[in-house]
Amino acid sequence: MPTPLNLNPDRLFPSEAKQREIARELYEAANAHPIISPHGHVPPQWLAENTPFTDPTSMLLTPDHYTNRILHGVAGVDLADLGVPVGSPMDAHRAREAWRIFCKNWWVFRGTAVQTWFEQVFAGVFGIDVRPSEETADQIYDTINEQLQTEEFLPRSLYHRFNLALLATTDDPLSDLRYHQQLNEDPQWDGRVIPTFRPDQYLEPARPDFKQLTEALGAAADTDISTYAGHLEAMRKRRLFFKEMGAVSSDHSHADAGTVRLSAKKAEKLYQKALNGEINAKDGAKLRRHMLNDQARLACEDGLVMTLHPAVHRNHDSAAFARLGADVGGDIPAAVEFTHALQPMLSEYGNHENFQVVVFTMDQDVYQRELAPLAGYYPSVYVGAPWWFLDEADAILRYREQVTPYGTFYKTSGMIDDTRAFASIPARHDVARRMDARYLARMVAEHRLEMDEAREIAVDLVTTIPSRAFKL
Amino acid sequence: MPTPLNLNPDRLFPSEAKQREIARELYEAANAHPIISPHGHVPPQWLAENTPFTDPTSMLLTPDHYTNRILHGVAGVDLADLGVPVGSPMDAHRAREAWRIFCKNWWVFRGTAVQTWFEQVFAGVFGIDVRPSEETADQIYDTINEQLQTEEFLPRSLYHRFNLALLATTDDPLSDLRYHQQLNEDPQWDGRVIPTFRPDQYLEPARPDFKQLTEALGAAADTDISTYAGHLEAMRKRRLFFKEMGAVSSDHSHADAGTVRLSAKKAEKLYQKALNGEINAKDGAKLRRHMLNDQARLACEDGLVMTLHPAVHRNHDSAAFARLGADVGGDIPAAVEFTHALQPMLSEYGNHENFQVVVFTMDQDVYQRELAPLAGYYPSVYVGAPWWFLDEADAILRYREQVTPYGTFYKTSGMIDDTRAFASIPARHDVARRMDARYLARMVAEHRLEMDEAREIAVDLVTTIPSRAFKL
Amino acid sequence: MPTPLNLNPDRLFPSEAKQREIARELYEAANAHPIISPHGHVPPQWLAENTPFTDPTSMLLTPDHYTNRILHGVAGVDLADLGVPVGSPMDAHRAREAWRIFCKNWWVFRGTAVQTWFEQVFAGVFGIDVRPSEETADQIYDTINEQLQTEEFLPRSLYHRFNLALLATTDDPLSDLRYHQQLNEDPQWDGRVIPTFRPDQYLEPARPDFKQLTEALGAAADTDISTYAGHLEAMRKRRLFFKEMGAVSSDHSHADAGTVRLSAKKAEKLYQKALNGEINAKDGAKLRRHMLNDQARLACEDGLVMTLHPAVHRNHDSAAFARLGADVGGDIPAAVEFTHALQPMLSEYGNHENFQVVVFTMDQDVYQRELAPLAGYYPSVYVGAPWWFLDEADAILRYREQVTPYGTFYKTSGMIDDTRAFASIPARHDVARRMDARYLARMVAEHRLEMDEAREIAVDLVTTIPSRAFKL
Repeated sequence: MPTPLNLNPDRLFPSEAKQREIARELYEAANAHPIISPHGHVPPQWLAENTPFTDPTSMLLTPDHYTNRILHGVAGVDLADLGVPVGSPMDAHRAREAWRIFCKNWWVFRGTAVQTWFEQVFAGVFGIDVRPSEETADQIYDTINEQLQTEEFLPRSLYHRFNLALLATTDDPLSDLRYHQQLNEDPQWDGRVIPTFRPDQYLEPARPDFKQLTEALGAAADTDISTYAGHLEAMRKRRLFFKEMGAVSSDHSHADAGTVRLSAKKAEKLYQKALNGEINAKDGAKLRRHMLNDQARLACEDGLVMTLHPAVHRNHDSAAFARLGADVGGDIPAAVEFTHALQPMLSEYGNHENFQVVVFTMDQDVYQRELAPLAGYYPSVYVGAPWWFLDEADAILRYREQVTPYGTFYKTSGMIDDTRAFASIPARHDVARRMDARYLARMVAEHRLEMDEAREIAVDLVTTIPSRAFKL
Repeated sequence: MPTPLNLNPDRLFPSEAKQREIARELYEAANAHPIISPHGHVPPQWLAENTPFTDPTSMLLTPDHYTNRILHGVAGVDLADLGVPVGSPMDAHRAREAWRIFCKNWWVFRGTAVQTWFEQVFAGVFGIDVRPSEETADQIYDTINEQLQTEEFLPRSLYHRFNLALLATTDDPLSDLRYHQQLNEDPQWDGRVIPTFRPDQYLEPARPDFKQLTEALGAAADTDISTYAGHLEAMRKRRLFFKEMGAVSSDHSHADAGTVRLSAKKAEKLYQKALNGEINAKDGAKLRRHMLNDQARLACEDGLVMTLHPAVHRNHDSAAFARLGADVGGDIPAAVEFTHALQPMLSEYGNHENFQVVVFTMDQDVYQRELAPLAGYYPSVYVGAPWWFLDEADAILRYREQVTPYGTFYKTSGMIDDTRAFASIPARHDVARRMDARYLARMVAEHRLEMDEAREIAVDLVTTIPSRAFKL
Repeated sequence: MPTPLNLNPDRLFPSEAKQREIARELYEAANAHPIISPHGHVPPQWLAENTPFTDPTSMLLTPDHYTNRILHGVAGVDLADLGVPVGSPMDAHRAREAWRIFCKNWWVFRGTAVQTWFEQVFAGVFGIDVRPSEETADQIYDTINEQLQTEEFLPRSLYHRFNLALLATTDDPLSDLRYHQQLNEDPQWDGRVIPTFRPDQYLEPARPDFKQLTEALGAAADTDISTYAGHLEAMRKRRLFFKEMGAVSSDHSHADAGTVRLSAKKAEKLYQKALNGEINAKDGAKLRRHMLNDQARLACEDGLVMTLHPAVHRNHDSAAFARLGADVGGDIPAAVEFTHALQPMLSEYGNHENFQVVVFTMDQDVYQRELAPLAGYYPSVYVGAPWWFLDEADAILRYREQVTPYGTFYKTSGMIDDTRAFASIPARHDVARRMDARYLARMVAEHRLEMDEAREIAVDLVTTIPSRAFKL
């Protein structure tokens, strides 16, 4: 007899009876509302073309680096055996083998967010009622695989079944956004999938391929990029194109959050060095910070919300990077600093009526010390939801405890799933909704909020709050 | 029907029945004792002259930057509309308008310390029984305003009604302390209001006005300040004057906590540069650290307790600073380091029988890592209570959890309200007493302390502990 | 009537009934297993020679700097009055006087780990049933003292009574390990005491005595150390000797965790400078980081597990260090960084099948941000248990909450007591077992783990998990 898979309706709620009862009520109030997903990495092609997912592994396992990294780090699984990198050849046999590895090593996920998410995907989306294990691997694989062939499990069907109100993708500034175009023009499509402007690589002057990237940017924008003013103009045009295609935000991740403005002369000088491939790392960082500041300047013009999430050591495992490429789970967070780093930008644009910046972090130390004070003071600053490494239950609770007491219920971003694992989106938002309900329930049980206030907040957190943060 | 304002007697206590009951008992034991407030910013003039507060806004809203900054940052209110900066013209009409803005935006305070404090001020001090809102704004304003005209609400009446045993103010080293003098000489006054020596600006050699400040210091101390030895002597004299006037502590806030001692020759050289306006920022910081070390040396002579609270980015919003001045809510905490920074000072004076330093922080990361270990080792080091950004309920609990297990119940400062909002002092201390009772109740319920020990600690925390930390 | 000393069977468990019941069950499951202590500082001579402990003070008080530092820092006790440093003359009179100071100041330990440990040692090991105080000091002293003269309290008897399965000591690379030899050859001895290779001082090229240390190393290894290759070879030989004598790990503590590899030429150049006493602090740190990287290289050859615990300001109190020497409680933790620091080493050896590194910290900020992500990705990286300053109940719980959700139940080290206070070993492990049971109980009560999973984890945490981390 395989062990049953239980999905307790009270999961993640506190075990203390009074708080649990309040949490249930608040959760249900929030859950009457659809999911807003203003930042993530689902390929728009899936929804534009609406082709069936080929198999459980390609849909659920390979694209999810949260899952792969733990299998590698804890059970010693070779990433390549899980189909990594995405796009490597994966026939039915290899897909099933990868799935078996995953199920056999289910124990590595004990107590993790990955376990919570998968349990909800398995039980909630695919009706699986047995715990993954070596014995149940094939049974689960087959059960899912059969369903994937049906109409009900096509990407667009899932979009509706998941009760998504909006799904943002993440896109290269040079993209023609053809899939967004296709969706926009499709009379059959009544969902909302919007692009996000992600210019990171074009803002790294010390990259060896900066010149090529810049020329390609110039070509896409039909703009002369031989001066920094031209680079800025090309950025302006591409941002406007994205905005016309529905984008509401630009997204930025660099080694630090620096935003120091250079003199025009200095910026031009460094830009010319960068184009000539002669800029060093230090000057490259200086020019990049100036360029990030200029993205804020452009945001005041076009109104795109800026999202920041700096300070991660990308591709920490050089050998894995050489063999498998980026985004395979080898990124490690590092300490970050915002108070001094954002001061130049906020002093210029922090009170501008058109400017909004949502700051995300993988370093929870800054929530109370820097981000809550910044969001509590500047009308333009929002504290991003806990994501990437911080999107598990207890970390979400710590976030609420450390950010919310500073007036920032209404200066947070709402839940951000940030995921490529499409099927896990409802589970990820469900965890956030449960933990928010739990936090609010404690506040009510301790007479720090009245029930009417808590109920309103629970609903606002999934409706007006993300809408305001992302100008939806 | 306006929503009632509830002040539940169990507010902030845990909802679990066993812990709640213990917490109640401990809280009541502590609450039998008066409030000791050894650091704050209430103007001594209020008590010396004992004139009535003019209106609710001037008394409760305008001086409280905790409140103003959230109204600005979350609801987008212009700080000037709240009467900021203190001292700007405020007639009855503007005062009422500011109050209406405050009440209308009451929702921004949900879950904050500001809400907790105001609820207790409203219900506890002024007998208000409706929740602030656009509808109730005038009613609340009028109810408070009428009471302010009565004898019972004069500053001295409130001092007694608040059950204050001591109130420290914060004062410029050059102050003649005339209001303290007036109180000391007033046979009708039976309270205790003492000054605090706050020399920050005279210890910043890279300030453009350092020469003028130093000359003024020399004049006040009747001392030749043409050498660094003279500067030190002037400081010595002013500290002694403060001590004679009742001061028990000097207070220091700089960009970092550095205390490196320079050679006498080097110090003199930098001092001369500073007087000539030729010192750069780096050397200015060096001399400032030496000067701070010398404040500790003077403390060994005169016995004033040193309080430190470094590392805040003051006036982060340059535009608001230019328009409204300092202390309008635009200060943002930054990471701080104490282990290395304080080593030179503690190695010299850390075991000196006359030296005591209370270290405060806005960066909770250092509580467990640096401050508890320092206070657990050096007889002279005390960990300051959580204040400024950390004086809300959950942060107080985290402080207890991270500091207390290192032997430091008896090496903490006792609650510090650090406030200019006179009427909120009882509420601020009440929150601390409730959270301390709560922490102790958990320790008892988990069999980590016996009830007799917990009761003794609960009382010590509001009596002998602050008395010892501040040599009262 | 003296106050009784209570040792509640539910101590440290949550007071909420449902969680408490689950915690009890999990704790009992774990407690059926012996104690594995893979890192500590008990002198092997005690067990080799099995001579009786001379008195309570020498056994329980003087060697325990956790206890001494709090008596000094909170009650102002002179460390010398407690018999510090270990080895200073201590007759029966002085021992009793030290004990009286300790008992009289028992209040300083309220709410600390020291209190919890001593209560268990007193009640559990020596059958004491009164709370320490000035009045009960002699009674407790005499009760313990009498027992120490009996067979049952000889070191080897206690080893068995404590149910120890393994005890590791910490040893100088030049040690002949004679006591380990003696134990290994003793047919009467059926326990397991193993050495640990601790080469810190030989890896600090900027030490003034580096040349002498290196020559002694060369002599011990019978190796020419006139080149860096020779130094490495000497290290290789001594590590192998330790391994032959039973060692499973090498232990490393430096100012930072840097592991940057130098070119062979650069390393040689700096090494020659160091031998000539001409290396500066900065270059000394560079060469040290290279040497630490080389310890990892040697670990890939010999399979010794590497343990790291950097970033503590040793001998912070210069005066106490001059008077009493090292390890008297004057070490203060500082912030640490691992993500960037370990990258060179992990990029080279992080996926090597023979390499394992257990990373400890006194800076809890890195648990979630750096260590859990590293251990969740690299098969070779383990997160060390909370120790030194972090080995108290609530810090252990925070550790679980911040590390475990990243897949790292099975990438932790198991409890490490790291102690010289032999009699406290069971108490220290007991606290860890209780807190782990408590964490797991919450996960079960909140439906985040099933009971069968939690029970298996509770047992694995004290059996297979430390065995795997330390290759036992």
